[in-house]
Amino acid sequence: MSVFMTPEALLTHWQGHRRLTRRVIEAFPADQLFTFSVGGMRPFGVLACEFISMTTPMVNGLVTGEWKGFEMAGFNSKATVLAKWDEDTATLDAAWPKIPPAKFAEHMVAFGEYPGSGWSLLMYVIDNEIHHRGQGYVYLRALGIEPPPFYER
Amino acid sequence: MSVFMTPEALLTHWQGHRRLTRRVIEAFPADQLFTFSVGGMRPFGVLACEFISMTTPMVNGLVTGEWKGFEMAGFNSKATVLAKWDEDTATLDAAWPKIPPAKFAEHMVAFGEYPGSGWSLLMYVIDNEIHHRGQGYVYLRALGIEPPPFYER
Repeated sequence: MSVFMTPEALLTHWQGHRRLTRRVIEAFPADQLFTFSVGGMRPFGVLACEFISMTTPMVNGLVTGEWKGFEMAGFNSKATVLAKWDEDTATLDAAWPKIPPAKFAEHMVAFGEYPGSGWSLLMYVIDNEIHHRGQGYVYLRALGIEPPPFYER
Repeated sequence: MSVFMTPEALLTHWQGHRRLTRRVIEAFPADQLFTFSVGGMRPFGVLACEFISMTTPMVNGLVTGEWKGFEMAGFNSKATVLAKWDEDTATLDAAWPKIPPAKFAEHMVAFGEYPGSGWSLLMYVIDNEIHHRGQGYVYLRALGIEPPPFYER
């Protein structure tokens, strides 16, 4: 079977994206993170809570086969979101090597609701973060704040 | 070597994202695609030209080892962008299987400027599309237009 990416490469790639997302969270003034938005969309702090709600529960589900914890994280300040972000970075590093490699191609139904292969479920979590972070870039620009460079991870 | 994704899976995944991006281009009124933006950012038509400038030149570079065509695509109407999009979808399907699988892990300097492994260069192109498409979602919402669902590919 040919390899596009190894599991190790994917973790490195994901943690790079997570470092960028952390910089975007940091770039928001604390009093705008959960209040400012454009076009009636969700504020970036709420989107960051969504990322938190998906990341470690998805990886833990792939490790254990148990799907739990996938509910919206209820943080409401920049400091608590950043603290949880750092905690999850360590959790992700520790849990990732425990995913049995066969799980990536295996079909499953995550959280009793989301069918897909292990790789596609993980890619959804990562892509969702990139997608909504792009929205955060617009919020920052609309606030007159220069966002961190996209290519820097 | 463990596999996170196969090359075939990546192509399927990418073409799914490209179908979504096409729907986002389609959702813009023709007279707003190259003019409307938020926060002084580039209009979505210009971003779509950037995706076009990166996609087939990157894949062709991986197939042939020659890096060319990576300049900003100069389309300026919804109809010409969509026509090029469809042409590139077929080009991508035809070229992808010609990438030697060893290229994905190989280190290279794309277009004489961008160092990275084959997989990381390709992921950059895809992630850049997801990132800027997320900005397009904000533009659509700001225009009062419901964007296509993110999960539908």
